[in-house]
Amino acid sequence: MTFTDRPPRVIIIGGGFAGIAAAQALKGSGARILLLDSQNHHCFQPLLYQVATAALAGPDVAWPIRYVMRGRPDVTVLMLAVEGIDTARKTVKTRVVDIAYDFLIIATGAAHSYFGHDDWARLAPGLKSIDDATLIRSRLLAAFEQAEASVDPLARARLLTFVIVGGGPTGVELAGAISELARRTLPPEFHRVDPARARILLLEAGPRLLSAFPERLSTYARRALERMGVEVRTEAAVAEVRPAGAVAAGEEIPAGVVLWAAGVRASPAANWLGVAGDDAGRIPVGPELTVAGFPDVYVVGDLAHVTGPDGVSVPALAASAKQMGWYAGRAIRRRLRGERPRKPFRYRDHGNLATIGRKSAIVKLGRLELTGFVGWLFWSVVHVYFLVNLRSRLFVAISWIAAYFTFHRGARLITR
Amino acid sequence: MTFTDRPPRVIIIGGGFAGIAAAQALKGSGARILLLDSQNHHCFQPLLYQVATAALAGPDVAWPIRYVMRGRPDVTVLMLAVEGIDTARKTVKTRVVDIAYDFLIIATGAAHSYFGHDDWARLAPGLKSIDDATLIRSRLLAAFEQAEASVDPLARARLLTFVIVGGGPTGVELAGAISELARRTLPPEFHRVDPARARILLLEAGPRLLSAFPERLSTYARRALERMGVEVRTEAAVAEVRPAGAVAAGEEIPAGVVLWAAGVRASPAANWLGVAGDDAGRIPVGPELTVAGFPDVYVVGDLAHVTGPDGVSVPALAASAKQMGWYAGRAIRRRLRGERPRKPFRYRDHGNLATIGRKSAIVKLGRLELTGFVGWLFWSVVHVYFLVNLRSRLFVAISWIAAYFTFHRGARLITR
Repeated sequence: MTFTDRPPRVIIIGGGFAGIAAAQALKGSGARILLLDSQNHHCFQPLLYQVATAALAGPDVAWPIRYVMRGRPDVTVLMLAVEGIDTARKTVKTRVVDIAYDFLIIATGAAHSYFGHDDWARLAPGLKSIDDATLIRSRLLAAFEQAEASVDPLARARLLTFVIVGGGPTGVELAGAISELARRTLPPEFHRVDPARARILLLEAGPRLLSAFPERLSTYARRALERMGVEVRTEAAVAEVRPAGAVAAGEEIPAGVVLWAAGVRASPAANWLGVAGDDAGRIPVGPELTVAGFPDVYVVGDLAHVTGPDGVSVPALAASAKQMGWYAGRAIRRRLRGERPRKPFRYRDHGNLATIGRKSAIVKLGRLELTGFVGWLFWSVVHVYFLVNLRSRLFVAISWIAAYFTFHRGARLITR
Repeated sequence: MTFTDRPPRVIIIGGGFAGIAAAQALKGSGARILLLDSQNHHCFQPLLYQVATAALAGPDVAWPIRYVMRGRPDVTVLMLAVEGIDTARKTVKTRVVDIAYDFLIIATGAAHSYFGHDDWARLAPGLKSIDDATLIRSRLLAAFEQAEASVDPLARARLLTFVIVGGGPTGVELAGAISELARRTLPPEFHRVDPARARILLLEAGPRLLSAFPERLSTYARRALERMGVEVRTEAAVAEVRPAGAVAAGEEIPAGVVLWAAGVRASPAANWLGVAGDDAGRIPVGPELTVAGFPDVYVVGDLAHVTGPDGVSVPALAASAKQMGWYAGRAIRRRLRGERPRKPFRYRDHGNLATIGRKSAIVKLGRLELTGFVGWLFWSVVHVYFLVNLRSRLFVAISWIAAYFTFHRGARLITR
C-alpha cells in the first residue's frame, strides 16, 4: 500500500474512550481521519451514576466529540450511525453514503445484556448513556414523589424499594448513591413519608461484590454498603423483572425502581465483519489488536476480546479502552511510515477504583490498597483530573465539595 | 368561617413564580398549605432560552419545588396533576384523592397557542419547560450535525436555516443566542460546512419587535440583531408550518428548525371553575385577584387577566406573577386574622428587560432606558441575583464569564 498521491484515510467508529485515544495517537500522522458516532457527544461513563442520582448534570460529564477534537484539522467528526462494513471494498456503509478507508478502527463498545430477556430493558434500565442516566434519575425521583403523594401504605412501601441488579462497580456505586439520596439529601424535604426508610437492595448472582477486586476489598465494600443501610444479597440471581418489582432467589420483591447493572453485551460490530464473536459478542483480536483475516481492521475498547501474553483477558475498563485505542493509533502511524508495531499490545494495570459513597471508596493500585476516606479522596482527584475541560473540572469539584458539606444534590429534575 | 378547631387549609396549584410567591407570603400564617404541581421542579423561565441554546444545563435554572420550600413544615409539596375543582364542595380533584381547601390559589400559568393549528406544536416547539428546552437544544445541534454529514447542498442550506416565529422577548433572545452559537461557538469545530453562514430568520406578525417596549428600544434591538446576522421580518405572519420549513408573507422558507415564540394560551383552569376565559383562556379576576362568585378562589400569574385601576391589563411577566402570588398569599393571611385586604392589587412596574446577545440587552426602568453593554451587565446581574441558590448563581456566573471570553457553550448535548 502506498499513499504517495493522497493522504491515507483512517475511519474510527465510536467516540468513546478508545476511539478518542486512537484519534489522539494519530495526531501528526498525516492521515485524514474520520470519526463516526451515532451520538454527538463523548461521555465520561465512570461518572454517569452521579448523573443518574442527581449529583451532577449531564453536561458536566459529556462533551461534543467535535469539541474534544477541536484544533485537529485532520479529524472530521460526523454524527452518523454505521450500518455495515464492506471489508472487500474497504468501505463503511452509512445512511448517507459509503465511505472508503485504508485503515479502520472499530470502537463501538458494549451495551447491557439481559441474558435473552430483552423485554426487561424497559423495566430495568441500564446505565450506558446520558439518556439512560436521565431516565434513571427521573424514575428514582418519581418513586419518592409518588410515595409522598400516595395514600396506600402498601404502594408506598413498594415505591420506596429500590432494586439494583449486579454487584460490579456500577451496581455498588448506584446503591451507595441512592442510599445517600434517600438517607441524607431528601428527608428534610418530605413530610408524609420518610425517604430514609427506603429499602435499597443490591443483588449479585455470584458469591461476592466487585469480583475484579481482591476479596478483602469486596468485604470492605459490602460492610460499607451495609452500614449505609443497603441490603446486599449475594448468590441472588434475578429470575424475573416485572413492572412492579423483581424475583430473585425465589423471593418476590415489589419495588418502585429496578436498575440493571449486570451483564454486558458488545455492540453488533461482529456481524458487520462477518466474524464470530465470543459469548458476550466481543470480537477476538490478535496481539496487535487486528482481526484475523483483516489486517487493516483494528478492534479496540469494550468491543475487543484481547487475551494477554499471560492468557488472561484484558478487563473492560476506561483505562484499558484508552490503552487499546492509543495502541491502534500508534500502530497505524508506524505502518504509515512503513514500520511494524514495535511490540504486541500489553495492558498495563494502573489500578482499579470503585466508590461506595461520600467518604468511602476502594482503590487497588498494584500492591497498594486504599479504603475509606483516603480512598475516596484519591478517587475524587483522579476523576476530576480525567474530565475533558476546565469548566467540567470546576463544576464537578464545586458540586462534590458542596455535596460533601450539605448533602445537596443539584440536578434533581424529573424530565420526560 | 372559623378555624378554631383545625388549621385553615390553603391549596396552591402551580409551583411557578406566582405559586411560590404565594407560599412565601403565607409563611407564619398558621395555615396548612398544600402546593400541587404536575412537575417536580420550579423553572426559572427567563433563562430557559439559554438551556435551549446549550449555554446552561437544565439543573442550573430549575430546582425541585420541595427544595425551594425546604424549612417550611407548614407546606406539603405533592407532584400531582389536578383533574378538576369542585367549588361547591371546595375540593380539588387529583388522580389519587380529592383534597379539601378553605382557600384556593390557582397559578397554573400558560402554554403556547398555535392559533388553532395544534399540529404545528410538534413541528415548531415552544419554550415553556425544561423538556421543551432540551428538545429545542437537540434539534438545533442536530441540524448542524446533519448539515455537516450531508452531501446534498440543497439539504445543507435548508438544515442551516433557522426560523423563529414571534418577535417578543423569547423570540429575540432565541434569535440572538442561535446567532452566537452559529457564528461564534461552532465554526472552529466544523470542517465541511460553515455554521457562520447559517440563516436565522425572526418573523413577527406585527409592525415591530418587542411591542411591550418603547419604540426606540425596539429599533435598537432590531439593529443589534441585524448586526449579528439575524434577518428580521416584521408584518410577516406565519401561514403554515411544515416538517421542512414554514410559509410566511407568501414566501416558502425551507428550514432545518422552526421554533415557536408567538401566541400564548392560559392553562385550562377556566374549565375547572366553569367560568368564561378571555380570548387567551385567561380567567378575569377582580381587584383582589378573586374570581367573581368564588371569593375564596384566587387566580394569579399568567393565568389571571387583571385590569389595573388605569384600565390597562397587567402584563404576563415573572415580576407581575410574583407580585400577584404575594398579594394573594398576604390577602389570605389577613382574612385568617379576620381582616380585609388593605388595598386592591396594583402592579408595580419595576421595569422590563430583554437580552439580545453577548454584550447587548435592552432595559426599561421607569424613565431610565439602558442598551448595549451596560444593559447587558445590568441584565446579567439581575438574573444571577434572582436564581434560587448559591450553586446556581455560581454555575451560571461561571458559565457566562467563560462564554464571554471564549464563546464556549458547555451543554451541547443531543439527547432523545
